[in-house]
Amino acid sequence: MNRQWILKERPTGMVGPQHFELRTSPVGTPAAGEVLVRTTLLSLDPANRAWMAPSPTYKAPVLPGEMMHGFAMGEVLESKAEGFAKGDLVDGMIGWQDHAVMKASDLTKRDRRHRPEHLMGVLGVTGLTAYHGLLDVGMPKAGETVLVSAAAGAVGSIVGQIAKIKGCRVVGTAGGPEKCAWLTRDLGFDAAVDYKAGNVRRALREACPNGVDVYFDNTGGEVLNVALFLMNLKGRVVCCGNLSQYNAEKPEPGPAAVPGLLVVKRLRMEGFIVMDFADQQAKAVAELAGWLAAGKIKAAEDIVEGFENAPRALAELFQGRNRGKLLVRV
Amino acid sequence: MNRQWILKERPTGMVGPQHFELRTSPVGTPAAGEVLVRTTLLSLDPANRAWMAPSPTYKAPVLPGEMMHGFAMGEVLESKAEGFAKGDLVDGMIGWQDHAVMKASDLTKRDRRHRPEHLMGVLGVTGLTAYHGLLDVGMPKAGETVLVSAAAGAVGSIVGQIAKIKGCRVVGTAGGPEKCAWLTRDLGFDAAVDYKAGNVRRALREACPNGVDVYFDNTGGEVLNVALFLMNLKGRVVCCGNLSQYNAEKPEPGPAAVPGLLVVKRLRMEGFIVMDFADQQAKAVAELAGWLAAGKIKAAEDIVEGFENAPRALAELFQGRNRGKLLVRV
Repeated sequence: MNRQWILKERPTGMVGPQHFELRTSPVGTPAAGEVLVRTTLLSLDPANRAWMAPSPTYKAPVLPGEMMHGFAMGEVLESKAEGFAKGDLVDGMIGWQDHAVMKASDLTKRDRRHRPEHLMGVLGVTGLTAYHGLLDVGMPKAGETVLVSAAAGAVGSIVGQIAKIKGCRVVGTAGGPEKCAWLTRDLGFDAAVDYKAGNVRRALREACPNGVDVYFDNTGGEVLNVALFLMNLKGRVVCCGNLSQYNAEKPEPGPAAVPGLLVVKRLRMEGFIVMDFADQQAKAVAELAGWLAAGKIKAAEDIVEGFENAPRALAELFQGRNRGKLLVRV
Repeated sequence: MNRQWILKERPTGMVGPQHFELRTSPVGTPAAGEVLVRTTLLSLDPANRAWMAPSPTYKAPVLPGEMMHGFAMGEVLESKAEGFAKGDLVDGMIGWQDHAVMKASDLTKRDRRHRPEHLMGVLGVTGLTAYHGLLDVGMPKAGETVLVSAAAGAVGSIVGQIAKIKGCRVVGTAGGPEKCAWLTRDLGFDAAVDYKAGNVRRALREACPNGVDVYFDNTGGEVLNVALFLMNLKGRVVCCGNLSQYNAEKPEPGPAAVPGLLVVKRLRMEGFIVMDFADQQAKAVAELAGWLAAGKIKAAEDIVEGFENAPRALAELFQGRNRGKLLVRV
């Protein structure tokens, strides 16, 4: 039997297990061009929550009664598609289910020489988001200051490490002293600011004595507004996510510094999603794999065991419990 | 004697004549490297108001007791500087005074073959702001929709006309039916929306049936927020000014669509000021002069006679009385 997590009702505030229900149905059979996949790792990402909102994002929202959408990795159990064979490692929008019959064209074959957890993190969507967002949108130069919010998260932790490779001063925000210590001690950040400790503006000003040239924004909210005041002339704000708002019952007002400070300081704020850079994926994965092999990037994964725990793990993502990439092992 | 308008006190809300006082002092004498200039045209711009705010912009604020800052044109009366001669036409940050002793290096000689009013408008800072902001920051392509706010103003009226030259569908916002009619009837805009008539969101949606690819933002405020919802994927928001907020006693919250919609639609919002493009000025002025001579751009000027009327004219700028470039003839 196939197990699926169904969105029972649309959350209006913090998402939790009460919004999901488990449903079982027979495992399907692949038709021509399709494969049967057994899910092995489920990726939990802040975007999952955004997809539950009524307003469409870059993809259609998940509707109540539908299986929860999600990026995942799996192993091909049976193939009716050319180029795919039993045992192949694949990833794609498999959804929250432990078996899936999918069009092979909606899946990507991955390289078994890498660890599956790495393929779902630093060598997957997460790492590519950090790589393209920082390098192609943020365009940091050596010696510049790069600030990243949610720096202990999956994307943020990679952003900071790539910025260090590029010779930047790197400052991150995270929730709590343990995460902050992890950033500076284990990941090589130059400074970390605990946004829960109060007076974020002052703490960030002290951590960024030369201002901020690139702000990689995973959160929106207060850190974004403060960052705009710290930006240097011609600074770049990479808009990657709005984590602080996804569970808000009532959205906060936007940053008061927009558009005034954008003009005065000639700032560029630019949103992106990783699919925009799909044509450069092979090169980017190769470079990330090189840094990983050379020990220049540490891959941090936070793995929750058991498909049945996916809804709880998603709630915990927004409570800030994880460090690095949050995965569910199915 | 030299007359100067002095900022008497910093306005907290709408600026008016009560914030200025006239002071007279002897006309100075140029030293080596300096020239004596008689002011002929004073440029009134929304930025004048921003310079009175306590927070610095791209230049130091005007302090109470100081002469009001302002861009102006004048004629050289006496020169002690190489390359400058009596009778030369010059412009620069002369300030609100009818005579000035200035370093020649702070002035630009202008071409007498053009009308002085054009040199202060479409062939000056105003036209260059429209030109570089639209073409170098907004990067419109033929067939795209360009929306511009404060479209009946100095910069907006040129932005719209350049966008038409580039083959775009052009929509402007302005205050009142007369200005809107002027935009579509005289300046060739495809549509105009009266932001004072209510339901701006609906009116803009109807005026932009294919969405907005480039939004040239002179105003911030409501039009910016609505525009963000109308932007197409990969749209560009050119941040030129924040007219709706310069006289606000309490700044409005920022646009709620930032940063969420920037991510979802991969938008770029970018601020600029015309000085950033100083190295391209000659080419840009030549192109603008060509369009003007060919009748592809109409220069609109609103000229107030008399230096003594400068404070009143500035207040009227924010009451939306002018069409096109507001100048004071000294």
